[in-house]
Formats: sequence, structure tokens, C-alpha cells
Amino acid sequence: MRIAIQGELGSFSDEAARRMVAKCTVVPCARSAEVFDRVENGSVHAAVIPIENSLAGSVAEHFDLLLAREVFVQREFQLRIIHNLIAPPGVRRSALRRAYSHPVALDQCRDFFKRNPTIEATPFYDTAGSVKHVIEANLKDSAGIASRRAAGVYAGKILAAGIEDDKRNFTRFFLIRKTRRILPRANKTSIAFGLKNIAGALHQALTAFATRNVSLSKVESRPMRGRPWEYVFYADYLRGHDKLAQALLEDLEKSAEFVKVLGIYPRAL
Amino acid sequence: MRIAIQGELGSFSDEAARRMVAKCTVVPCARSAEVFDRVENGSVHAAVIPIENSLAGSVAEHFDLLLAREVFVQREFQLRIIHNLIAPPGVRRSALRRAYSHPVALDQCRDFFKRNPTIEATPFYDTAGSVKHVIEANLKDSAGIASRRAAGVYAGKILAAGIEDDKRNFTRFFLIRKTRRILPRANKTSIAFGLKNIAGALHQALTAFATRNVSLSKVESRPMRGRPWEYVFYADYLRGHDKLAQALLEDLEKSAEFVKVLGIYPRAL
Repeated sequence: MRIAIQGELGSFSDEAARRMVAKCTVVPCARSAEVFDRVENGSVHAAVIPIENSLAGSVAEHFDLLLAREVFVQREFQLRIIHNLIAPPGVRRSALRRAYSHPVALDQCRDFFKRNPTIEATPFYDTAGSVKHVIEANLKDSAGIASRRAAGVYAGKILAAGIEDDKRNFTRFFLIRKTRRILPRANKTSIAFGLKNIAGALHQALTAFATRNVSLSKVESRPMRGRPWEYVFYADYLRGHDKLAQALLEDLEKSAEFVKVLGIYPRAL
Repeated sequence: MRIAIQGELGSFSDEAARRMVAKCTVVPCARSAEVFDRVENGSVHAAVIPIENSLAGSVAEHFDLLLAREVFVQREFQLRIIHNLIAPPGVRRSALRRAYSHPVALDQCRDFFKRNPTIEATPFYDTAGSVKHVIEANLKDSAGIASRRAAGVYAGKILAAGIEDDKRNFTRFFLIRKTRRILPRANKTSIAFGLKNIAGALHQALTAFATRNVSLSKVESRPMRGRPWEYVFYADYLRGHDKLAQALLEDLEKSAEFVKVLGIYPRAL
């Protein structure tokens, strides 16, 4: 299976794709819009995209693309984000003076830099890219900070593993496809819906869930582009594709401007 | 007034701080936690922080810090994000082969790069930092993409202004202080509240708003760190500090695990 990701080989999206689909071929894309283009035009079988991180929050661009494009979420996956210090082969840890990575990753490894004051945290535009850079330039005093996968892809050596401060750092990924297919044990649904006036409207809309005792695991409002007084809501609820859920959606459609089911899939724990 | 920001001089936060407080001294900090530390320990009078962008969504880290720290939002401000092509003095546009900037900024200027195929979009870790870089290194074929302010700070020349694709690119900023002070025309409130079980609980909590006809302009759920089955909600509503709002908050406190008022301030239009 050919799976598109946004970013470089060795990125966390690459790692998630390989964990979700064994023996897949990962197709790296520079931009998220290109990832969705490829799913829609069929040049890949599916895509794996990050949707939210437990520390950094939602990837708003990906929610907006899920709303705008004709794709369907078939699976979700939770990846523990583990940062590793990766250097060119032969470089010893005592020789390190610099560690490159994306500023968000550097910030998640603050304790490591406190414990190792001789290594300077140096911002780079990408995690996997920082490993590629130190290895291609064969820097003798530098490492990158990235996923374990990056060490494999660029033939780097892991000098320290799990150097992130907070072990509760998870990123949630979606596997999206062009066709709407619901897997047997699907018990979770992601939807987007529009409301004109939020005052009573959200309360009214949520009645559809409350009266059926259906749990929401996420609710998020986003202003609609170009329509400053309208809002789109992204919500996840813990129910699959059955009669109760059908009735719930019909109910919701009465109070919402529109409802779009983004995907129905088995919940990742 | 000394105002802390996260990031470099010349960044959009720097620009927002100067627009919000005339003749302030901006104190750049490497990390957001440091910005909040400085407000709490009194080494600055206030801080200006981005809280959400119309295209990229909420800055989750800043919401989490507003919840965790003893600070109060006193003002909000909407900054139009305008990207400018900024080169070292004397460099002509026809000589440009590369434009550096943060990947998000590059992605927001895709049409510009389509119209100028001889200029390569080159990722850098920061917008203002890219201008600093091309000017300090005196690159003859390169520019940075950043705010107008960055051109002033690093003595660069703006070769093209407003090169972003989408003119509806706004970032909302908060001015935060240590003391709780409510300005006279305050008509908007930001709160955080906790709920144990989202099923009926959110619906119940929103009754406090619906029955009083108070409009919510934002609702967002975030899982609580370390407590996987509890959620914190961030909400903004269009009401200041009066009797009705007091009653609303008392009502909300009955259905929520906790309620924290993050700030009460005049709404920015």
C-alpha cells in the first residue's frame, strides 16, 4: 500500500504510517494539501496525518482539509512521541556541542539540555531533517533530535533515547482514504457541523447527544474562513454506525446548518 | 512599560506588543514559560502572547499556561498577518534565488512562489530570525519573509509587501498582567472549566449560557494532562463583569469541577 505523509522520511508521521500499515510504501509530500490531493486523485491508497498532540493541541489545517475534501477517516492511532539524540556514526556523546531539531522538539527536551550544558539546543526547521543534515554534512560535534525511525532512514546512531521531559506526549493520527469504508469494530465517529449563532445553538445541538447518553470526547469551535459570524464545530463521539447514531445525526441536522461525517472508526486506546 | 514576548525582536508578537502599548520596551524570551515567569515575578509589567490564528488554530500551550499561572487577561488585539519579502540593503529583487522563512509562513505565500519560480522557498526556524540571518550574513541572493517590523529591527529592505495568499490571516493576541484589573468597557470574558464526564455534562454546563442568552464565541475541549478521563474546556463569551455574568458563573460552578476566569476585557473587532 502506498501511504502519503506530510514531511520527510523518518518523521513521526512516517513512523505512524509504518505502525498503522505493515509493509507500506511511504510517499513523502511537502505540503498537507498535496497529501489530500494524492488521496483524492488516487496516486496513493491512503494517507496518514497527525490530527492532535496531547501537549500542542489540534492540527487545525488538517481538520479544515477533512471538512473541505472528499476523504473518509478509516482508522485512528496514538503514537507516543519519543525524542532521540541521533548523531553520525562514530561521533561520541562527549564530543557533542550542538543538537539540532524543530523548536517544539527542543522545548520538549529542556531537562536534557539542563543536564548537558555543553550541548547547545539549535533550532532547525524539522526533526527528521535535522538528522539528515548532521549526517549528510558529517558533523563531528552535532546531533539531531528526532524519532527512532530517523536514525534508521539516515543511518545515524542513537546516543540517547527517550530524552523528552514529559512521557505523556502523544500524537493522534488518522488514516484517511478516498472511499467510505467502515471497519467492523468501529465505535467512534468524527463529525464537523456548522452553527449560525452560538448562544443557544450549541446547547440545542448537544441535546442530540445528551438525550441519548452519547459521550463526546472532543468539541472544538473554529471560525469559518470568510464568514466571521459563523462557526464550524469539530466533535468526536463514542459511537459507531448504528440506528441510535443515525437518529442522533438526523436530530443534529435539524439544529445545524450542515453536518459532515468525517469518519467512523475503531477507537484507539 | 516593559512587555515580555516569546520570540525574537521583529516577530509578529513584537509588532502586536507595539501596537497594543505605545512606547513600550519589548523583552524577548526564548520560551513561553519564561514569559509567564516574568509576568508573575514582576520583572516585566505585562506580556503579549498569541492565542489563536485564523488559519492555524489555537496556541494550546498558551491556554494551558493561562490555566496554570496566576495572571489575568486585560486586553485582546487582532493583528492582520502580513508577510513581506525582506532583503539586505542593495540586493535587487531580480538577484534573489532563495527566500527563507518559517515553514508555516512559506506555506502561506505559495502563490508568490508560483509567480516567482526562480526564487526557492527555503525553510528556516523563525520568520524574524530569517531576516536577521540574511542580513547578518549579508547574503546577496537571499531574502527573509517576515513582518514589516523585522525590516525595521534588522535594517532590511522590503522588496515586496503583503505576499501572503489569504488576506483573512489574523492572529489574536492577549495582553496579560499579574493583577486582576478590568477595564471600563470590558464586554468579553475568557474562562476555563473542568468537567468529569462529557456526555450530559457539557450540555448541562451550557444551560447557564443558553438560558441567559449569552453568546459563546469560542468553545474548545482539551484532555487534562495526566487525567485521561477529564477534560478542561476553554470558552469565550460576550459579556463583561456584571450581575448577570456573576449569576452565570455561579450556575456554571454547580455543574463544573472548577471554573477559572482567565480574563475580562474589551472585545477587539
